[in-house]
Order: sequence, then C-alpha cells, then structure tokens
Amino acid sequence: MNLTPAEIRQLCRIGEFASPTAGLAPGYVQANLVILPKDLAFDFVLFCLRNPKPCPILYVTDMGKSEPGMFAPGADLRTDLPRYCVFRHGELLEELTDISTYWRDDFVCFLIGCSFTFEGAMLRAGVPVRQIEEQKNVPMYRTNIQCVSAGPFSGPLVVSMRPVSPSDAIRAVEITSRYPRVHGAPIHLGDPAPLGIQDLNRPDYGDAVTINDGEIPVFWACGVTTQAALLAARPELAITHAPGHMFVTDMKDEELGN
Amino acid sequence: MNLTPAEIRQLCRIGEFASPTAGLAPGYVQANLVILPKDLAFDFVLFCLRNPKPCPILYVTDMGKSEPGMFAPGADLRTDLPRYCVFRHGELLEELTDISTYWRDDFVCFLIGCSFTFEGAMLRAGVPVRQIEEQKNVPMYRTNIQCVSAGPFSGPLVVSMRPVSPSDAIRAVEITSRYPRVHGAPIHLGDPAPLGIQDLNRPDYGDAVTINDGEIPVFWACGVTTQAALLAARPELAITHAPGHMFVTDMKDEELGN
Repeated sequence: MNLTPAEIRQLCRIGEFASPTAGLAPGYVQANLVILPKDLAFDFVLFCLRNPKPCPILYVTDMGKSEPGMFAPGADLRTDLPRYCVFRHGELLEELTDISTYWRDDFVCFLIGCSFTFEGAMLRAGVPVRQIEEQKNVPMYRTNIQCVSAGPFSGPLVVSMRPVSPSDAIRAVEITSRYPRVHGAPIHLGDPAPLGIQDLNRPDYGDAVTINDGEIPVFWACGVTTQAALLAARPELAITHAPGHMFVTDMKDEELGN
Repeated sequence: MNLTPAEIRQLCRIGEFASPTAGLAPGYVQANLVILPKDLAFDFVLFCLRNPKPCPILYVTDMGKSEPGMFAPGADLRTDLPRYCVFRHGELLEELTDISTYWRDDFVCFLIGCSFTFEGAMLRAGVPVRQIEEQKNVPMYRTNIQCVSAGPFSGPLVVSMRPVSPSDAIRAVEITSRYPRVHGAPIHLGDPAPLGIQDLNRPDYGDAVTINDGEIPVFWACGVTTQAALLAARPELAITHAPGHMFVTDMKDEELGN
C-alpha cells in the first residue's frame, strides 16, 4: 500500500480505513490527537509546555476549529483519523471512526509529536528498532519521575524503551537529538533502576521485547505520559486518537528535524 | 561585575539595578517577558506555538502566579527584572522598575527565548558577533514573510542580522541549530531581497553594523516579532521587559541546547 497522507485521510473520512497507521506514508509525520473543551485547554497547554520531552506540541487549533493548519491544510480532525476514543470523566465511553456527533464549538484540538518520526530516522541510519523487528508494540514503563504539573494535569513520566548495542545507543542519541519536537534525545540509558523500573520484562503498557547479550536499554520520554495525565484529570469530556491510529500529516519528518 | 542570576534579581527587586542585562551572568539564559490578561493568553500561546522560530516559549505561569517555575524558583516576575514597559491598547503608558501596582489576579506571564543564549555559544566557538564587537544593538528588519496568525495576533516576521564569513556562516548554522528554544538555526543567508529587505544599512529596529568585504549577512528569526504582534493586537493591558532589560534565569544556556 503506497498511499499519500491525503489519500489516507480521505479513506478515513469516508469510513474505508480504520486500522493502525504504523508504516503508512513513510517519511511523513504522524501525530497524537487530544481534543478538550476550552476551559481545560489552557492548563493542558501549560502541562505540555512544562514537559516538552514527553508532550511535544506540534499544533493547537483555534477554539471550535478542526483544521490542523500547516500540518494538513484542508484536513478535518473530526473525521480524518482512522479511529478515536471518547472519554467521560477519564473513563472510556466508546471507540468510533468519526467524532462529528460529539463536536462542540468550545473544543480545542492538539497535535502532539509521536516517536514514529524518530524511529524512521533511526531505521534510515541502520539502527535497529526491536519492537518493529518483532512486530510488537513498544514497551512502555511508568517511572518514578513526576512531571511538572499544571492545573489538574499531573502524573509520572512514562518512557518507551528500545534495546541497542552501545555503539548504536550513541548513534541513537545523535539521531534523535535532531528531533526535539518528537521527544528528542533519550532521557536515560542502561540500568533501569534509577527510573524506578523493576523489571524490563513487565512493561506497564505495550509488549516486552528481546534484549540481546551486549545490548543496553535506551529510554525515551513517551507520549503516553500526556494521555495518562489527561485521563487522571478526569475531564468531563476528552477525545483522543485510538492507540496506534494516528493522524497522518502532510509534514515531512525531515521538516521537523534540526 | 560577577553577580549570580539570583543576586541580579535581588538587586532588581530592591531597586538597586535597573540597567540592560547584556553580558551579565554569562552562561545563564536570559528571557523576554510578556504579561497579558488570561482572556488573551490562550490566543497568544497559539501565536507563539505556530511561530516557534521567532516566538520560542520557555515558560508560561499559571494564571495569577508570578513565579517562573524551574527557570528561577522563588523569583517574582513582578519585581525581579531591571525595567518594564506597560502598554495600554498597544501604546506605551510608562516604563518602571516594579509592576506590583499593575498586578491582577488574571495575569499570565510568558518567558520567551532570547538570542543572547545562541550568541554566547557563537562567541565560545570563535564566531564573531558584529554588534557586540561594535557595542551596538543588533540590526533588525521587518520582512515580507507573514507569521501564522492566532486570534488577534498577527504580523510580519522580524529578523536580526549578523554578518560573518561564509565559513563562519556554516559554523553559525551548526551552532545555533542546537538551540531551537532560543530561535535556533538562521532562516536565511545572503541576498536580503527575498525577505523584502531593501537596505541593510537602514534597519527597522536597532543599529546598522559594518559588513566587511567577503562577509555575508545571516538572518535569524527575532523576538521582536512577538512584541510587534502583541502590540498590533492593541490589548487592553500588556506588560513586557524594557528593551535589553531581560529576565535573568537560573537555567544554564547549555541546559537549553540539544
């Protein structure tokens, strides 16, 4: 399948694509989506700005607008993702493929950077990404590091982990440093104990992956941090992309790189 | 004078320092300040996020709070800058050294990155910074590039210019790329015509500087963009640092670098 971002969004819009987006439109930025009522949006912006490594904001819409600016002119964030989750007071209410019926004039939409962008850069540089090799979800862990809070939003930093050789760890730092708007450089490598992680084989989210002899775990700030802080605040209503079902933008990965 | 950031802020607070901050506390981040009522703050955040090169947000306070978080724990943005400007409907009302009497519970404070940080890095790498050599203000120009607007905030991109040799221009790109939170890499180099700049000797703000034979002008997005867009929106009330009289933080320049 070799669809453009606009073609993928059009298929989502007419209800003919509702699957995960990993691997689609390679080279184009995919983004996490969060939709909140305006009365919470300001505090949510502050939370993201105070925790830029886990929560890198790519774009915020005007109140009541669902077009994501320069990231995809003409797109509609109410219909152009493959699948959404609707939460009431932090509890999942339903998953659906079009949120037009939930739309309100006081909604603000956030696009937040996703690790797909830096994983693409790692792969192009020959650095292996284990969970892709093993066709799993990346393993993610809640750490003992608390985010800087803002209004009702707070919670632990969640990290994703990719095991690589020491030389590839150095390359991975170099490569991902170029992408501060999609989590940037790792926050830790080696012994997981300082992060409060007891057992790498028991991730809090996603799947455990193989760590070969001679490899070290490398930890990046993860977008799940944002989702966890969002839901812990138990907002009256919040809408996000469904896990893995991202918004595919017209922005090229390289346009986000330094 | 070899004062720490905390000592400088304390002297500001007790009214014993009210001068420009260029060159003070070398190695520490200095920041632009904007204070706005909450009802404009959300649109102002959106404007900054949509124009991250001229308007890189470092920190936003909770409404009614004047402590700038991890950038200077215990500091007070109402008293700890050397000098402030108060604007009503976009017109300068007064300059003063303490804004406590203007303070309102609906105020939100923004710290925005400043080029002092990347100029320090250039100097450490041996790349000359002409306006520092000539003890002038950096020359700044309004360009024909329009910022992405948000609510009442819009206007042209303003750039600062530093002339260097071609090889130093390459170094300057490398060096300033590491600091996306303080304007990052240049946006243009060479012929000023594509930016709509007619005469480099007649800057719109600041002072003209010498351009030697064999040097090329290098243009960076400039924080004056933010101030121009702010005042063009004619907000009921807005407070900023006075030009050159920045907020001196406890954050090291290198902590902002990639």
